[in-house]
Amino acid sequence: MQLRELRTQVLEANLEIVRSGLVISTFGNASGIDRDSGRVVIKPSGVDYDRLASDDLVVTDLEGVVVEGQLRPSSDLATHLELYKAFPEIGGVVHTHSRYATTWAQAGREIPCLGTTHADYFHGPVPLTEELTQEEIESAYEVNTGKVIARRFQGVDPQRFPSVLVKGHGPFSWGKDALDAAHTAELLEEIAHIAYTTCVLNPNAKPISQSLLDKHFLRKHGPKAYYGQ
Amino acid sequence: MQLRELRTQVLEANLEIVRSGLVISTFGNASGIDRDSGRVVIKPSGVDYDRLASDDLVVTDLEGVVVEGQLRPSSDLATHLELYKAFPEIGGVVHTHSRYATTWAQAGREIPCLGTTHADYFHGPVPLTEELTQEEIESAYEVNTGKVIARRFQGVDPQRFPSVLVKGHGPFSWGKDALDAAHTAELLEEIAHIAYTTCVLNPNAKPISQSLLDKHFLRKHGPKAYYGQ
Amino acid sequence: MQLRELRTQVLEANLEIVRSGLVISTFGNASGIDRDSGRVVIKPSGVDYDRLASDDLVVTDLEGVVVEGQLRPSSDLATHLELYKAFPEIGGVVHTHSRYATTWAQAGREIPCLGTTHADYFHGPVPLTEELTQEEIESAYEVNTGKVIARRFQGVDPQRFPSVLVKGHGPFSWGKDALDAAHTAELLEEIAHIAYTTCVLNPNAKPISQSLLDKHFLRKHGPKAYYGQ
Amino acid sequence: MQLRELRTQVLEANLEIVRSGLVISTFGNASGIDRDSGRVVIKPSGVDYDRLASDDLVVTDLEGVVVEGQLRPSSDLATHLELYKAFPEIGGVVHTHSRYATTWAQAGREIPCLGTTHADYFHGPVPLTEELTQEEIESAYEVNTGKVIARRFQGVDPQRFPSVLVKGHGPFSWGKDALDAAHTAELLEEIAHIAYTTCVLNPNAKPISQSLLDKHFLRKHGPKAYYGQ
Repeated sequence: MQLRELRTQVLEANLEIVRSGLVISTFGNASGIDRDSGRVVIKPSGVDYDRLASDDLVVTDLEGVVVEGQLRPSSDLATHLELYKAFPEIGGVVHTHSRYATTWAQAGREIPCLGTTHADYFHGPVPLTEELTQEEIESAYEVNTGKVIARRFQGVDPQRFPSVLVKGHGPFSWGKDALDAAHTAELLEEIAHIAYTTCVLNPNAKPISQSLLDKHFLRKHGPKAYYGQ
Repeated sequence: MQLRELRTQVLEANLEIVRSGLVISTFGNASGIDRDSGRVVIKPSGVDYDRLASDDLVVTDLEGVVVEGQLRPSSDLATHLELYKAFPEIGGVVHTHSRYATTWAQAGREIPCLGTTHADYFHGPVPLTEELTQEEIESAYEVNTGKVIARRFQGVDPQRFPSVLVKGHGPFSWGKDALDAAHTAELLEEIAHIAYTTCVLNPNAKPISQSLLDKHFLRKHGPKAYYGQ
Repeated sequence: MQLRELRTQVLEANLEIVRSGLVISTFGNASGIDRDSGRVVIKPSGVDYDRLASDDLVVTDLEGVVVEGQLRPSSDLATHLELYKAFPEIGGVVHTHSRYATTWAQAGREIPCLGTTHADYFHGPVPLTEELTQEEIESAYEVNTGKVIARRFQGVDPQRFPSVLVKGHGPFSWGKDALDAAHTAELLEEIAHIAYTTCVLNPNAKPISQSLLDKHFLRKHGPKAYYGQ
Repeated sequence: MQLRELRTQVLEANLEIVRSGLVISTFGNASGIDRDSGRVVIKPSGVDYDRLASDDLVVTDLEGVVVEGQLRPSSDLATHLELYKAFPEIGGVVHTHSRYATTWAQAGREIPCLGTTHADYFHGPVPLTEELTQEEIESAYEVNTGKVIARRFQGVDPQRFPSVLVKGHGPFSWGKDALDAAHTAELLEEIAHIAYTTCVLNPNAKPISQSLLDKHFLRKHGPKAYYGQ
């Protein structure tokens, strides 16, 4: 993939999460990676979305060394890089503080799979990380945020669970590229919203059965999928 | 009815449920039937709404055999067909995962008739299906979703109850044609929303009296209606 | 006032309650009265707002006899007329099923005065009517809806309490003319919304003190008002 | 700073709080101060935002004497002036009745710091004032509203806590200028919203740790900040 193309896609993903209402102020960022060259493109730190241009994006290597760009990269870059290292199958990462996903993260609860809307995209509850320790917060905080996510995903397939809630913080989503990650972030927010209203209406609402969960997830994902064209 | 006209109407119904905010991503579909020819027109599976054109719609017979169209029909087609077979008086079906109707479906509760807004459109609580059994899920899932709805409506008039909540899934609505079904889906969502906030504010809120229910439903529907022009 | 001017104002009020999101489908109507001639102008029944024109409005006298107009008046006309008879100081009435005001009506609770936003417009809790009896529902329902409101306001000043919640139904608001009534309906909805979230967050939230209530209401209304120009 | 420039900025801040949905009707006002000349520019009282022009703004001195302008200043002017006197480091004040901040004010609760979204802008819970006494309400109410805020901030740094909730009333926010105060008012509303949904979902949700709070606040504010460009 041309770096120019990657820039365009990452810019579009950053604008998409604003358009879809997931981001207020500058609370969000999207990145993408070209696995062949190991180049990562990410939003610059604290720049307003309405004046963000493709040339403002920052290009780094997987160690976070800036290769192209005049601006400082998003302060969450180190978290994105940890995810690219831990999950070799992904090509894009999106971080937001979207309202309902963040609500679950702040409430300290995984999002239970209460219906087929959820099961179409996640093969079970949306995972929640542990809290970072005081030491992890005070040294290399953003790296450690990535590590606490990777730790939570030991033995968990990131393609079956394309988002995580960082406790007391908010969601990270990923996908085959930055736009796919943005799309997942939007779906996560809707799923989080319906799960919220369901649990408020009925605190004892039960997760759907394993067979219904399998049916919906697997009709959209994997070798037996029959949804779409 | 000309098939061209039916296509136009079904396209419009599919666009209407997006415009009115009932559908996020590709979570929704509308269909219509011409009873004379037995032709059903439905949205193709997993196609984005913003590039949906009349010619993308798929025409099938009542057994689901594709008669016209290059694309695969919505994976929910089989459910729509079961509804057309069970309810001979309807001409259109709409399925969404709209937020508040889905909330009640996930909470596993019928929507009680708490006010006149509800009574203007439903002659009592909005029905909820049973869960599908594991066997019903694993074989012919979409057909069985239709069957579990039809079973719930034994002895119930689908014209007095023009929507259902499939447990753990979401709502299906119907009407004399696809646009009418879309309109009902919108009203259902608003009714579901106000019932949600009412039950959150007052978990002991009581349904309205039978006489008030009858008054509102029957001033809009049936031989003694006096609402409208 | 010219009848033409009254028509224009009533049309504008009907469009305003749609623009401000208080009305879905055809759930709402606004009317105005010219006290000199005793003419009332009201929305026709069940007509879509997006094709409503000034000439579609219906003119009646205070007994509901149509004086001008080809269409049938709103089925709620009789309620509006009862309010014009009971409250000689008002010139406009608006009825909606707006979401949060209706929530309180369905929950069967007055809206307590929990803050100064409320106190700026209502001099205490927003009143709630009794339920109509079966007999009142079955004969002259719309007239009796007006009567149950008038009964609730015995000894209550409709200028200090410019809205009411009809139990199990929804709000009616009024003012010096139709636009003023529409404005009150919007404020009522916002007040109802904040009272809802307050009571959900803190079910034991206390009403503000009488002195704070008086301060805010009376700095905007009555002889000692000092708010505005 | 030129008075003309201050007027432009204050006008923009007043329009911004409307655009961002914080204000319904005329429930809000923004002001700015030029510390060199001691001139304060504020919105006029009860004027509709959609016809507000730069020349309508009122210029006063710090005692509230009108220096320029034909209109009466906002009735909340005296509160703004108390804040400018108590907090010499601020240059702008915004008052709104935004929905979720007002919800916490009406519920009589500080907003606990439940996540990093909050910690990015406030170095702990958003403070809540005491109730005003009957005497404070009945004499010089608006001055006393400012005094009760100043009292709450004894020993508290207004730059680490750039907003307050006045009990039973609503939020005031401030910043280096009027636009910065408007931006803080928007962030406060979002923080208040997510804290609301978090506490509804989990009434026992715990504040984040002091180390996470420090990390997020101090990476954006103060000498060790490393966020942004």
